[in-house]
Amino acid sequence: MIQEGEYVILIGENGKKWLVKIRRDQVFSTDLGNVKHNDIIGKEYGDKVYTNTGRVVWVLKPSLYDYIMKIKRKTQIIYPKDIGYIIVRLGIKPDSKILEIGTGSGALTTGLAWILSENGVIDTYERRSEFLELAKENVLKIRPKAEINFYNEDALYAIFKENYYDASFIDIDSPWSIVDKVYNALKPSGRIGILLPTYNQVDKLIPYIKDKFIDIEGVEVFLRDLRLKKGMIRPEFRMIGFTSILVTGIKIL
Amino acid sequence: MIQEGEYVILIGENGKKWLVKIRRDQVFSTDLGNVKHNDIIGKEYGDKVYTNTGRVVWVLKPSLYDYIMKIKRKTQIIYPKDIGYIIVRLGIKPDSKILEIGTGSGALTTGLAWILSENGVIDTYERRSEFLELAKENVLKIRPKAEINFYNEDALYAIFKENYYDASFIDIDSPWSIVDKVYNALKPSGRIGILLPTYNQVDKLIPYIKDKFIDIEGVEVFLRDLRLKKGMIRPEFRMIGFTSILVTGIKIL
Amino acid sequence: MIQEGEYVILIGENGKKWLVKIRRDQVFSTDLGNVKHNDIIGKEYGDKVYTNTGRVVWVLKPSLYDYIMKIKRKTQIIYPKDIGYIIVRLGIKPDSKILEIGTGSGALTTGLAWILSENGVIDTYERRSEFLELAKENVLKIRPKAEINFYNEDALYAIFKENYYDASFIDIDSPWSIVDKVYNALKPSGRIGILLPTYNQVDKLIPYIKDKFIDIEGVEVFLRDLRLKKGMIRPEFRMIGFTSILVTGIKIL
Amino acid sequence: MIQEGEYVILIGENGKKWLVKIRRDQVFSTDLGNVKHNDIIGKEYGDKVYTNTGRVVWVLKPSLYDYIMKIKRKTQIIYPKDIGYIIVRLGIKPDSKILEIGTGSGALTTGLAWILSENGVIDTYERRSEFLELAKENVLKIRPKAEINFYNEDALYAIFKENYYDASFIDIDSPWSIVDKVYNALKPSGRIGILLPTYNQVDKLIPYIKDKFIDIEGVEVFLRDLRLKKGMIRPEFRMIGFTSILVTGIKIL
Repeated sequence: MIQEGEYVILIGENGKKWLVKIRRDQVFSTDLGNVKHNDIIGKEYGDKVYTNTGRVVWVLKPSLYDYIMKIKRKTQIIYPKDIGYIIVRLGIKPDSKILEIGTGSGALTTGLAWILSENGVIDTYERRSEFLELAKENVLKIRPKAEINFYNEDALYAIFKENYYDASFIDIDSPWSIVDKVYNALKPSGRIGILLPTYNQVDKLIPYIKDKFIDIEGVEVFLRDLRLKKGMIRPEFRMIGFTSILVTGIKIL
Repeated sequence: MIQEGEYVILIGENGKKWLVKIRRDQVFSTDLGNVKHNDIIGKEYGDKVYTNTGRVVWVLKPSLYDYIMKIKRKTQIIYPKDIGYIIVRLGIKPDSKILEIGTGSGALTTGLAWILSENGVIDTYERRSEFLELAKENVLKIRPKAEINFYNEDALYAIFKENYYDASFIDIDSPWSIVDKVYNALKPSGRIGILLPTYNQVDKLIPYIKDKFIDIEGVEVFLRDLRLKKGMIRPEFRMIGFTSILVTGIKIL
Repeated sequence: MIQEGEYVILIGENGKKWLVKIRRDQVFSTDLGNVKHNDIIGKEYGDKVYTNTGRVVWVLKPSLYDYIMKIKRKTQIIYPKDIGYIIVRLGIKPDSKILEIGTGSGALTTGLAWILSENGVIDTYERRSEFLELAKENVLKIRPKAEINFYNEDALYAIFKENYYDASFIDIDSPWSIVDKVYNALKPSGRIGILLPTYNQVDKLIPYIKDKFIDIEGVEVFLRDLRLKKGMIRPEFRMIGFTSILVTGIKIL
Repeated sequence: MIQEGEYVILIGENGKKWLVKIRRDQVFSTDLGNVKHNDIIGKEYGDKVYTNTGRVVWVLKPSLYDYIMKIKRKTQIIYPKDIGYIIVRLGIKPDSKILEIGTGSGALTTGLAWILSENGVIDTYERRSEFLELAKENVLKIRPKAEINFYNEDALYAIFKENYYDASFIDIDSPWSIVDKVYNALKPSGRIGILLPTYNQVDKLIPYIKDKFIDIEGVEVFLRDLRLKKGMIRPEFRMIGFTSILVTGIKIL
């Protein structure tokens, strides 16, 4: 049963989606009409409610994908297609100890926190306090079980634990400047991931990682949506052609 | 320190990789020469050993990606790019209860098991015992903490728990035949994922899912590798152009 | 020297493009201000003019790409990436005799007409007169040298020349209904191309072509734009993910 | 009727293709058995012959696509997907005057020559005589009607006609070194195309072209093959992920 204070995903009969926190006596306005929060309280997930104009809105339990897609953002975010690949490529598991450089709006932090249990740790660094505050707000929505430390510091000047992290991810402007520190922070055989917005940055990064890491890979992940209309299956006409390049590697001694 | 009985990833100076279980007094043959297991025992992950011909081989701790790519297979497997997207799209987390129809060689099972903690459950069904035995062997390599039940049954005739699973994944020949049963097995708001090898199967599936699930999406995930040679950055000439189509949705009442 | 009655491509300093027919004493309005046609008359192609607000507009000779991209359309058009592949795959050359079923807005007709000399022939059929009139207007802008016959007929009921055409292209709703007639119209070893909007249509088409044609191929052509900013090379974020599927083959006896 | 001295495409019942010049009394060996040239002479294009083991081989008239795919090569070649886009983007037509820098094996030269009539001209430069000889052999197979001049010179030291060419294409190691000369050789509003193998080269090229050309575009063209099996439509598993980047522009004064 849905209770006050919980987040729900509303999906209208027109396919639109909203992430909403349920608060007694409030009303949520959509282009299908208004939904009373009180109508949602006590409903089961998967059930529907009606707007004041009689249109159907489904009430669903938000999952990682929804939290990421509905994140409040002040930055470019990392998308599910990339977060999924990062999780597998870096081998994130419930007890992972993770170092994140460049929290941004917290999309990847949310994805990593989703996977971690009480034994997991994320230390995440963000220089700009307005981003970090927003990221914290976003991540806390999923009620993470792991220890998540939000550091409002420039990672270049921070002091990291050494030989401690299983995995690390860098998403800042000059990732090469922090590679050495991240190398020291990682356990041997620990995984590094770096997000790069241009091919020039990929090129610049290479000499900084090539002797410290092995199994170095650079990839782009694409997602092509299919339109699922019976008898008329085809890809959607528009797609995201690029988000970023992911470079990954494994720390060697 | 690496001990007998552990799995390691060996990466040769030529970039080749092998997943090896360490056994005292054994020798592993590579195209760079032979590696003595005894030389590996006691080493730290991230360290290197030498073959009998003096070539370098790095010894690394295997991660999810390595276990999947080095899986023993008798079937097509689901690849990391797809497994990552499935994890995020279905919202898999440590305590998820997951129903898998069509274990195959166990690549996805391994990926899901990696994410689960002691509180997680996977019930996986595979009609063909030779596949299930192989899958079990593959999954157990990662020493999963969750409860994983391998059922050697045709899922069509199996009896599933009802309103129990957070997520389910179907990878069998006629997925539409099992959709109703999986619907009942899922909690309301639970996630379904279905892997389809052809556009015809996507088309055939649609009427079976469209009234029971919402937020239905069909995607293809692509991965393009970059060649990371300083001053000569370009995509690799060859790529995998297709693995399968992923259809996902959320159970509604 | 640019003369009255000619078409020019104007490219503003903001990168916007317009296809304009030069007419004495007229004024062309842009978001950079107004351009006097009289300022353009007598200029050399490649030269620039100024708007009334002092902004630069370049005056260029239109080429095939420009005519296609600036076509007046009442239908989906075939894009340069597909037209280029069709030209090569069907082996269009100056003296080709071409049968086109489904003129639409005339984008492909324009592309084919561009390649043909005085010895070339295009017979193009379009059921809907408003499309055919528009297509004729579009194609005549390039002042084609070949014989181009615009037939306002339903191709299903038209009588085609037999064993006459080197190449044919079908872009209508039910292409399978016309395949037999097109087969007869082609010379032996003549090329057929068919545009299909969905995978279902591809599937439906196959039995109609498989014994009459050989070397049957189905492709999708993608174009990914690069953003060409010095030091920041990356693909554009948005791309066209799909236009249509092209099926081609060679007539056998 | 097929005569001695003509080129034919043979397509075996197994789908394999060969480009063969017909010579009386010769025998062509395939994995389906031997084909007597004398059996082909006098046949109509589109007809079939039998090998000595009774297998079917179809005899077809080669088209541009076949000549390119069966080209004799000592270099990387430019593929049909790219040649098609180049033809449309540069606006090649029967009377085009074209300057090609870097003939290589002559794949693009063949494609351009195919489009040209008696009024067209290609001046193509290749430093290495073994490439130029091969290219000439390849291009002459299509019996081009246009004037094609093969220059065995380093284009850097050659003297080009000025304000003469409608279009030019550069495919050499350091394309930036020749851009100024090509600019002078082009008519105002003439089109330039440049093929680049890496993103680094794209980056390096930009300052050399940005003030001399307008409408500068960088693209990658992809082709994804569909497997056309009735009831089992899907993309092929393997595809070419990259060939090269095409940069194009228009000369301004």
